[in-house]
Amino acid sequence: MYFASDNAGPAHPKVLEALVAANTGYAMGYGADPIMEEVRQMVRDMFEAPDAAVYLTATGTAANAILLATLANPWDTIFCAPMAHIQEDECNAPEFYSNAKLTLVPAVDAKMTPDALRAAMLAEQTRGVHGPQRGPVSITQVTEKGTIHTVDEIRALSDVAREFGSKVHLDGARFCNALVALGCTAAEMTWKAGVDVVSFGGTKNGLMGVEACVIFDPKLAWEFELRRKRGGHLFSKHRFLSAQMKAYLTGDLWREMAISANASCTRLAEGLRGHNTAELLYEPQANMIFVNLPRRDHQRLMAAGAVYYTMGGDPATGDPDEMIPARLVTDWSMTNEGVDQFLQILRA
Amino acid sequence: MYFASDNAGPAHPKVLEALVAANTGYAMGYGADPIMEEVRQMVRDMFEAPDAAVYLTATGTAANAILLATLANPWDTIFCAPMAHIQEDECNAPEFYSNAKLTLVPAVDAKMTPDALRAAMLAEQTRGVHGPQRGPVSITQVTEKGTIHTVDEIRALSDVAREFGSKVHLDGARFCNALVALGCTAAEMTWKAGVDVVSFGGTKNGLMGVEACVIFDPKLAWEFELRRKRGGHLFSKHRFLSAQMKAYLTGDLWREMAISANASCTRLAEGLRGHNTAELLYEPQANMIFVNLPRRDHQRLMAAGAVYYTMGGDPATGDPDEMIPARLVTDWSMTNEGVDQFLQILRA
Amino acid sequence: MYFASDNAGPAHPKVLEALVAANTGYAMGYGADPIMEEVRQMVRDMFEAPDAAVYLTATGTAANAILLATLANPWDTIFCAPMAHIQEDECNAPEFYSNAKLTLVPAVDAKMTPDALRAAMLAEQTRGVHGPQRGPVSITQVTEKGTIHTVDEIRALSDVAREFGSKVHLDGARFCNALVALGCTAAEMTWKAGVDVVSFGGTKNGLMGVEACVIFDPKLAWEFELRRKRGGHLFSKHRFLSAQMKAYLTGDLWREMAISANASCTRLAEGLRGHNTAELLYEPQANMIFVNLPRRDHQRLMAAGAVYYTMGGDPATGDPDEMIPARLVTDWSMTNEGVDQFLQILRA
Amino acid sequence: MYFASDNAGPAHPKVLEALVAANTGYAMGYGADPIMEEVRQMVRDMFEAPDAAVYLTATGTAANAILLATLANPWDTIFCAPMAHIQEDECNAPEFYSNAKLTLVPAVDAKMTPDALRAAMLAEQTRGVHGPQRGPVSITQVTEKGTIHTVDEIRALSDVAREFGSKVHLDGARFCNALVALGCTAAEMTWKAGVDVVSFGGTKNGLMGVEACVIFDPKLAWEFELRRKRGGHLFSKHRFLSAQMKAYLTGDLWREMAISANASCTRLAEGLRGHNTAELLYEPQANMIFVNLPRRDHQRLMAAGAVYYTMGGDPATGDPDEMIPARLVTDWSMTNEGVDQFLQILRA
Repeated sequence: MYFASDNAGPAHPKVLEALVAANTGYAMGYGADPIMEEVRQMVRDMFEAPDAAVYLTATGTAANAILLATLANPWDTIFCAPMAHIQEDECNAPEFYSNAKLTLVPAVDAKMTPDALRAAMLAEQTRGVHGPQRGPVSITQVTEKGTIHTVDEIRALSDVAREFGSKVHLDGARFCNALVALGCTAAEMTWKAGVDVVSFGGTKNGLMGVEACVIFDPKLAWEFELRRKRGGHLFSKHRFLSAQMKAYLTGDLWREMAISANASCTRLAEGLRGHNTAELLYEPQANMIFVNLPRRDHQRLMAAGAVYYTMGGDPATGDPDEMIPARLVTDWSMTNEGVDQFLQILRA
Repeated sequence: MYFASDNAGPAHPKVLEALVAANTGYAMGYGADPIMEEVRQMVRDMFEAPDAAVYLTATGTAANAILLATLANPWDTIFCAPMAHIQEDECNAPEFYSNAKLTLVPAVDAKMTPDALRAAMLAEQTRGVHGPQRGPVSITQVTEKGTIHTVDEIRALSDVAREFGSKVHLDGARFCNALVALGCTAAEMTWKAGVDVVSFGGTKNGLMGVEACVIFDPKLAWEFELRRKRGGHLFSKHRFLSAQMKAYLTGDLWREMAISANASCTRLAEGLRGHNTAELLYEPQANMIFVNLPRRDHQRLMAAGAVYYTMGGDPATGDPDEMIPARLVTDWSMTNEGVDQFLQILRA
Repeated sequence: MYFASDNAGPAHPKVLEALVAANTGYAMGYGADPIMEEVRQMVRDMFEAPDAAVYLTATGTAANAILLATLANPWDTIFCAPMAHIQEDECNAPEFYSNAKLTLVPAVDAKMTPDALRAAMLAEQTRGVHGPQRGPVSITQVTEKGTIHTVDEIRALSDVAREFGSKVHLDGARFCNALVALGCTAAEMTWKAGVDVVSFGGTKNGLMGVEACVIFDPKLAWEFELRRKRGGHLFSKHRFLSAQMKAYLTGDLWREMAISANASCTRLAEGLRGHNTAELLYEPQANMIFVNLPRRDHQRLMAAGAVYYTMGGDPATGDPDEMIPARLVTDWSMTNEGVDQFLQILRA
Repeated sequence: MYFASDNAGPAHPKVLEALVAANTGYAMGYGADPIMEEVRQMVRDMFEAPDAAVYLTATGTAANAILLATLANPWDTIFCAPMAHIQEDECNAPEFYSNAKLTLVPAVDAKMTPDALRAAMLAEQTRGVHGPQRGPVSITQVTEKGTIHTVDEIRALSDVAREFGSKVHLDGARFCNALVALGCTAAEMTWKAGVDVVSFGGTKNGLMGVEACVIFDPKLAWEFELRRKRGGHLFSKHRFLSAQMKAYLTGDLWREMAISANASCTRLAEGLRGHNTAELLYEPQANMIFVNLPRRDHQRLMAAGAVYYTMGGDPATGDPDEMIPARLVTDWSMTNEGVDQFLQILRA
């Protein structure tokens, strides 16, 4: 009953098998390994982007920050939702790498609306050299509240960015969870919808720690490479990143894992919907649920060993009827038994 | 016959076994995994430093840059040898993380001399607020030329740093190769010799990609943690870093691997010494050899499949007698057969 | 009829006389001039702060950015009102100097409320190392909307900052306009109300270009000096900054000029209040008025030579009855004739 | 007898007259003042560069750092002489503004040689993404040792820069002193010799504090403007910078002052050459002399009120015969009497 995060579960066994298989003899370092050759092509194929530059980093924060720095000037402001990971959970990494600032765009269901984005972009740069300049727009897919932008919603935001000459970054830490939920292709969810660069996440979906950075305009590639190295994110024994990503892409393992995570989430959400004290705060669309539960329920769940985060309010002490919001995340390895056990305790 | 780098060889099988073993069930992320608890204690034991703060990063550049940034102010200058990795091979990462600059101190056998360090430190800060201020001293052990500082040499440099109130960083990407060569303890080579923070390398010595950052003064720990996160170097699935480091420390696997790498180097160096066209440029003390060979030898070796870097001069075309310097690095997995084959071709 | 900005008017003739007087013979540079000795003491006297460190910069952006960088770590967030100069009008200078980010705190009448500040400070740092850390609070006095914090309001904000261990910066670009409006002392408006560092503005109040940076805790002084130099803001011929500030402080010239500017504003505001088409957007308390006027009024005023900024909407074309907001700023040199002429044209 | 620095003397009276004349009525700020219109054209005329972008900053460090940041990427290294002002006297300002690092190129008579520059540029970027990339070359004219590059020497360095695709910055803090010494035009000493951007100094040559930044490729202009603002170096009451520079350019006042300063230097140097204990360390070519004098001479001079800097060795105590180097700088306001008095005391 571990719902704290999708980065707390194990890697898929195939990922470790791939590491073991890769661990023979010598291989050139720093991305010049032969497995990376294959990965580059596989990512291009998946995104239907034969010219895309493809790089790997080991953390999502690195992927986001380096990609954004490649798009933003130091005097720019980056537009994102107030609850974006780059705003709340990266300890100023985007600002560190880009020297730009962030402008928080009002969001509905954790998604910037095109009108709010346009208003924010209009408001910037009315002051000439005095204010920050318009930089890239960053969209989080799946959002930090578990909702998903439709392809049309992504396109609508990209269109606004284009009006102002801005580029678009997609923070796809949970890219695959969105992709299987939408049932579209990677190309449809990205460059066909106006996205310029993608953090294509693997860590939250069954890898040990790898994200692919997909840059559709190869003219940006060399700057990305320099920024990655300068940030200390270029791996010498790179084959161990490549091998993970190859396993991810082989036989669409990513799809199998994302479907599994989302299915556990759906099962859990249905159970919660059927429970009288539970109030879903957002419509769960991928593998995350935000739900209000009374303190008494939290106490019973936690006593039984359920692990997850609550936001605001101490679940341990206080009025047993007070509602306390919680985040429940399911990963690929979650079993129906785990979900059912959670629901059973909740209903007890 | 792969002598290009000690980051091109495989990880030790025990490292992969440890990853597989760690890959069960859920574990808290971001360094709160139980394996890291063990690792922290094992590193403290190894360094006889019960209060030390211990962190893991996945690359040596990250370890160096974040540690130096924790010691240096943006208006400081960091003192190092001209051939230091932080000067030549990190694409400005130390400057990026610290905003400080580097002062290159003349070196003999790739080691700063205490007199040269004192002169450099005296020369800085004669200009009050106008010039850079004195920041930390960074010592590379093993040096980038394959030589080793004795414990007394480290202490002599630390003593100079102390005269000026500066802290000392040890870039120990090849820490274990030095340790087994000197036959001293980790404590003797570090805090007992005046070192404040250590990049304790694992990647070049048989891990997939882990370095431990050892900070003897725990008051610096929180700043390090923030800088690591802000740099995108805090791993969510941290147990996979912890597991590697635990395998490294268990049964002194690090020692076994370093001894193996150094032994291959010694065997190779002896063979080169006995060869009439080879001129050793530095006294090989760990697992790296710099050697001058005539072009004809390079051509014969490379044609036979030997892989290594030459510096300056194209080995492929030109006067067959022209001497061209090469770097030969041995890693833990190098076999006697590989070394002997190389020597045999050289002598042919 | 020039109401575009208080930085568009002339310097007071006494300021230029002081420059001429200072322009004799040689003087040590970089702040070691004898006039600065006097200035340092005069500022300390004015602020009743015998230990304060006092420095000069030539621009307000420099004063704000360097002071904030002296208080903030790179992983911090600085709390300010959404319309703060540091947010809107400094092209990321605070972020550039500090590497920190800004958190925008909801404001009423352009003033952060203590409750909103507390809520914002509570919301940060709920994520440990993952989110930005709490940095300093920056209060703008006079606000960018022409309102003034009472001493109690400043203290209430400082008290919230203190709850969280944060320091307080006062952006006093219009410090003197606030001081004469409140009728309090510089000490009462700053350190007695919990302020740690002050940008004490001169440029907008009759100097050519000088702000004093007042740092009540002298332990921060050396860092400020290094940051000022590193930013290129340490003047070699410093006596020409010192002379301006000395003229400002001599015989309370600052007071005379601030009273004059505020009086013109009051005269203008009264005239606007009596005009049927004018809607004051904020209560003018210092030397700035924000007022809605119909386009037809703007056109008449501008045709007659009035100079000022409108916000949103083109005054030149469109519905003559549409209300368009304008900012009117009065400086020390504004005459009653100028004000009356403006009002007369408005009423015509 | 004040030879400490050319930034310690007064501004020319015409400069203050210009300030007084500019101090009437209102003027648009931030460089939109009408005087700046004139200045822009005058600088373009002087440099025979009708398309050049021209900006003003108040300090030379700002001019250098912002110009270099406009040319350099954060992963670059800037090539300069070891005694360059940007290396020794700007407290990391170039690194702060550009995030690049500096590579020190061996110099003869304080001037990089083309061969040394080529060697340094070849040595960089042999490591691909691992090392810093080649950035701009910065030439100091007059050098920090009082020597001057001939136009051919500048061209030779620029040619090397061009070989590697690098741009050239000229730190002309003493631009006019060099210009009158060489007897060439501003165009000949800059863009005709391959220079891309110039810090055209006024502060050390009789202004209160203004440098012009001359950018021959106007495509770089907007980035410069943003960087200047972001650094806090855009003046609101800009007319007071413009007025100084206009006075400087009117009737070639810059020339008159530079000739005066250089003449005093020549007179002083001749006197020193004729003195048996004085050893000139560099051939004085502009307005700076580096000379060895025995301690007894320093003591006699200083006792008589001469003010100047010595380097290394305490002039006050020690062997009276020990030679101690000194720097003697003459500014435009230095009189023959001052020079002769100094020489007389020396000879006494």
